[in-house]
Amino acid sequence: MTDTDTRPPEAELAAFAAGLRLEDIPERVRHEARRSLLNIFSTALAGCREEAVDIVVRSMAPYSGPRTATLIGRSEGGDAALAAFVNAMGANIFDYDDTHQATVLHPAAPVFAALFAHAEAHRLSGAAVLRGFVIGGEVECRIGNAMSPYHYARGWHITSTCGVFGAAAGVGAMLGLDAARMLHALGTAAVQSSGLVEALGTMAKSISVGGAARNGLLSAALAADGFAGPPAPLTGQRGYLRVHADPPRIEALTEGLGSQWEIATNTYKPYPGGIVLHPVIDAVLALRAEGLRLEDVAAVELTGHPLLRERTDRPDVTTGRESQVSAQHAVAIVLLRGRAGLDEFTDEAVAETLRAGRPPMSFRDDAQLRIESAGVVVRTRTGEILRKEVAAALGSERNPLSDAQLEEKLSELARRVGFKGDVGRLAESIWRIDTLADAGDIMRLAAGRG
Amino acid sequence: MTDTDTRPPEAELAAFAAGLRLEDIPERVRHEARRSLLNIFSTALAGCREEAVDIVVRSMAPYSGPRTATLIGRSEGGDAALAAFVNAMGANIFDYDDTHQATVLHPAAPVFAALFAHAEAHRLSGAAVLRGFVIGGEVECRIGNAMSPYHYARGWHITSTCGVFGAAAGVGAMLGLDAARMLHALGTAAVQSSGLVEALGTMAKSISVGGAARNGLLSAALAADGFAGPPAPLTGQRGYLRVHADPPRIEALTEGLGSQWEIATNTYKPYPGGIVLHPVIDAVLALRAEGLRLEDVAAVELTGHPLLRERTDRPDVTTGRESQVSAQHAVAIVLLRGRAGLDEFTDEAVAETLRAGRPPMSFRDDAQLRIESAGVVVRTRTGEILRKEVAAALGSERNPLSDAQLEEKLSELARRVGFKGDVGRLAESIWRIDTLADAGDIMRLAAGRG
Repeated sequence: MTDTDTRPPEAELAAFAAGLRLEDIPERVRHEARRSLLNIFSTALAGCREEAVDIVVRSMAPYSGPRTATLIGRSEGGDAALAAFVNAMGANIFDYDDTHQATVLHPAAPVFAALFAHAEAHRLSGAAVLRGFVIGGEVECRIGNAMSPYHYARGWHITSTCGVFGAAAGVGAMLGLDAARMLHALGTAAVQSSGLVEALGTMAKSISVGGAARNGLLSAALAADGFAGPPAPLTGQRGYLRVHADPPRIEALTEGLGSQWEIATNTYKPYPGGIVLHPVIDAVLALRAEGLRLEDVAAVELTGHPLLRERTDRPDVTTGRESQVSAQHAVAIVLLRGRAGLDEFTDEAVAETLRAGRPPMSFRDDAQLRIESAGVVVRTRTGEILRKEVAAALGSERNPLSDAQLEEKLSELARRVGFKGDVGRLAESIWRIDTLADAGDIMRLAAGRG
Repeated sequence: MTDTDTRPPEAELAAFAAGLRLEDIPERVRHEARRSLLNIFSTALAGCREEAVDIVVRSMAPYSGPRTATLIGRSEGGDAALAAFVNAMGANIFDYDDTHQATVLHPAAPVFAALFAHAEAHRLSGAAVLRGFVIGGEVECRIGNAMSPYHYARGWHITSTCGVFGAAAGVGAMLGLDAARMLHALGTAAVQSSGLVEALGTMAKSISVGGAARNGLLSAALAADGFAGPPAPLTGQRGYLRVHADPPRIEALTEGLGSQWEIATNTYKPYPGGIVLHPVIDAVLALRAEGLRLEDVAAVELTGHPLLRERTDRPDVTTGRESQVSAQHAVAIVLLRGRAGLDEFTDEAVAETLRAGRPPMSFRDDAQLRIESAGVVVRTRTGEILRKEVAAALGSERNPLSDAQLEEKLSELARRVGFKGDVGRLAESIWRIDTLADAGDIMRLAAGRG
């Protein structure tokens, strides 16, 4: 028996993370990584001026070292740990970032934030960031796969809990950690993994997302300096996976490693809010394009996976936050405005559908349907019946946003926060990240200082 | 029904933490808090030059703001967040700090480190620190009580997971948070709670202890600035306690609040290593004082709680770390040296008992015995039978270390690391902490700059 046979699975994963070269990553995977980056910069801009971000920037300023990294969309800077923290939290704050559908984790936020902060502070190349991003995404999603669905259902905020491993592996790869030190980085990440579903909808959610980025970065830096963890931090007798999943699916850590790429399955939302509502929004946007208006509607029937009813049958929502998971509000606002961006899920938008009247709605469960499929039947006030079926919502794995649509998302979200920078150049730099000698170029463009 | 009746238990705990005045705390409780502080400064000195601490100080230096706080026993300083991190990890690194016996959590390390760092940076009084320490200890131990024994047995490092709440509540009290903001501080702490038993015996253990202090401090600072969490972060449907205990004992959060004081039950170790060995060490120290030497011993029989055998029947240990839970090594080294300090559980000491020969040992389980009780029977080479019973080991709740013994522990541990400061003045300042206008005085004494 060789060493390879007896090492724990996380050691194999660590060796993979340490040894993977950019040229080992297929171009389609690299391109999906670039798409993930374009999308995460768009949501990072969207979230960069939220109150929770403002408070963190202000409260944590005394605890930042000299400025070496950009806070996206802001005039302040910080050390790489603070920038990792702030940029991750902003990028995820609206849950409008990417989704790894197998786990519902948002893989990009903690990883990209740690990577770009570290790269900017140390003038590392775009190729190094791209490689680190694929590695980080691979590690965090595989750990997520090994704990799903138990982990999230039990109450852990999987984006945060797994994100710290992704940030550690990605920054570790940029630091050139060998396999042994990479394993120690994962061990040091494991003891810092935290985050609760209970905090969704509150500022506190963002602290575990930001912490995942910062703590992952620090885990890698510590490992580079010889800091050590246990030999089997994930699969040991009381290791991370055994504490946080019941039972863990340990083989998910390594099955298909190097041939199945988790980041290649990443998806991007065309609309904020619950993904289960997205096929409904698609259908209603189509009906509106065909001329339907809210005042024409007598009643609506939705057919979808039972989760559609369970999660979104909320006729009486009163806040923007709640409206993101209200089918009644979503249908009404789309019929009123013909769009479903962030502005359609604010307190103001909620007040508008409340005034205008949300249509009576019934739900038919169809457990055979996938989450990205739905049917909408509208009965009009004149007795007409309109039907629209959506097999795969825009943004789902089977109907992805195009590169151009991702660029539009970036432009729209940048415009929404009054971004002063050059969005076209930002997008163009991300598409050609492999060629940038200094990944910090992207961060300086994303600062938006005009 | 009043607001008081309907608020969740953690809101009641938060209101208690926000409202408690120093004069509400009985003098016996305050004195136990001072004893806890004396003890924790002794173990903080003991651990201050460990390699894990060196690496953290070096690796995290770029991520510290301007120096406002002392790193105990070291020439470097840092911002309050870094000092909280480093001082907590050093104080706990040998597991030679205090023990809250109901939960086996080490309450002082994360709390004292956060409090003193914040107090030094903001020139707050010793009375404010003492109040914060009692409040922090109360909050963390009660959360620990609500999750025990499931939580630790499942694999969480309870000192770390609960420590972040203690640090948040303690610093929050120093910041004058009202009840609502104190609850938000606990919510922000909840999403950062982490730490694994799997990491014990490795450097990584210390990262979650340090993180508990830093993250608790930041949780309080954020709450002071308006950062908000969920309304029931601990007892909500997917709240912290429901995720981390099964089932939680929620009433432990508030039962006897203001009359039962957790910090008053704190205990301090006269010897490093597993507490279950302490009555055996007491007995063998007594036998040695009566003239017994290792070379006289033919065989030893230990009678104790089954955990004594389960945890410490380790005849063949080869490292200092393992020796802390080896009855065979402990008995041998005490008979050789007549003492049981940190130096008796090093790699060198292990080599010494290996050379000299550890005595053959048998164990008799007695489930009726408490963990702090044990009996030792020695058969000598001349056929004599020597017996020693210990009902309550030194350092246990029923046989606590005296104030003078705590001062001796401080002196010994300071001497062991070549501490250049004035240990007598340090101890004296801690005893009269209530009267210090600037708690930073204690930190400057603990820096040991001579």
